[in-house]
Amino acid sequence: MPTLVIANKLYSSWSLRPWLLLRQLGIPFEEVLIPLDRPDTRERILAHSPGGKVPVLVEDGFSVWESVAIMEHVADTRPDLGVWPSDPAARAMARSVSAEMHAGFSALRSACPMNLGKRYATRDRGEAVARDVARVTAIWREARERFGAGGPFLFGAFSAADAMYAPVVTRLDTYAIPVDPVSRAYMDTILGLPAFREWLEAALDEEWVVAHDEVDEEPTATLRRRNP
Amino acid sequence: MPTLVIANKLYSSWSLRPWLLLRQLGIPFEEVLIPLDRPDTRERILAHSPGGKVPVLVEDGFSVWESVAIMEHVADTRPDLGVWPSDPAARAMARSVSAEMHAGFSALRSACPMNLGKRYATRDRGEAVARDVARVTAIWREARERFGAGGPFLFGAFSAADAMYAPVVTRLDTYAIPVDPVSRAYMDTILGLPAFREWLEAALDEEWVVAHDEVDEEPTATLRRRNP
Repeated sequence: MPTLVIANKLYSSWSLRPWLLLRQLGIPFEEVLIPLDRPDTRERILAHSPGGKVPVLVEDGFSVWESVAIMEHVADTRPDLGVWPSDPAARAMARSVSAEMHAGFSALRSACPMNLGKRYATRDRGEAVARDVARVTAIWREARERFGAGGPFLFGAFSAADAMYAPVVTRLDTYAIPVDPVSRAYMDTILGLPAFREWLEAALDEEWVVAHDEVDEEPTATLRRRNP
Repeated sequence: MPTLVIANKLYSSWSLRPWLLLRQLGIPFEEVLIPLDRPDTRERILAHSPGGKVPVLVEDGFSVWESVAIMEHVADTRPDLGVWPSDPAARAMARSVSAEMHAGFSALRSACPMNLGKRYATRDRGEAVARDVARVTAIWREARERFGAGGPFLFGAFSAADAMYAPVVTRLDTYAIPVDPVSRAYMDTILGLPAFREWLEAALDEEWVVAHDEVDEEPTATLRRRNP
């Protein structure tokens, strides 16, 4: 059985991606959670991953790290599970927008860190963030329009692209960023997934606070249970 | 035949990656070069790619963009060409370090932009750059040591991981950054590849100057022929 090494469920957007993929596709795995920003964090991560980063998937005695690499590894080793869409044009777009997510949207990511324990009011977060939001939602609308006929996900059935965008779904929701109806419906699909709810419930029970992922704004709601 | 849309060969590190992969694997393609930073650049790129980014591979009527996505697309559609190493552990590491390159090393990339037309003297470029160089060369040494027995490339035979790291090879060379002997030998392998020489020769004949990719230092040598 593979082991997935992750960080805090409340904050670690990178960790959510492969976790959601494995859970959603029904792949059994053991979970190792290493809390961020603690004295032994780095040493504990290095024991699993030479790059010192989470998430890491350990399987058959070797490690795979970086979320898109983990997804391609899962696709390679479980070709029957539909990690990527089967239609070649849909698959090409799914891979392209997943890679775009992997390396891009830095303004949105730094202004609106993933934080499943709070909610914030709508406000102007600057032009660069607005550009990122416009591109993300344009991707969602294009995928849904061209390839979404067979189901509620970006490419119809659930795929790795949905796992890649799940943290952004939570950011747009947490920071109450206005979006079009197609994007909102897609966000609600992800936020309502049983696998996502399971992650969220565990996140809300965490006690750790990571200061640099807490924005300097008064929240409109605090959802976490142990360290609000 | 696929079409690969790229930017300036002298500066576009992203473009070099898929171009080198296709050339090195002997895949015929048509090349469209759109120079950066000109009045019609954005419009010309958008005609090929909805994300407005190069490189883009256009094949069978659809587009694939982002270098790692292009590589996975090529691997998917040409499974016999060895885009990734065949050994599962080597393949896992090749994918992981390619994804690490895709999203990381921002200090090195911004301090030392790819510029095939000049050479600069060794100097201290700061701690963040030194950390990136240490990690890049650690990856190279580990890959060579664990998987490099069958050839001079990172994983023995040429793979997509070599294409992903080729621009960094040129940066370490251009800015005369000191490296260990294993890394230097690997760099010489890439810099000596006929496919890389072909790219370089075309780059040196380009006339365009992209100001933000020219660092504010006196070069030790100027190699370009038309606009030094």
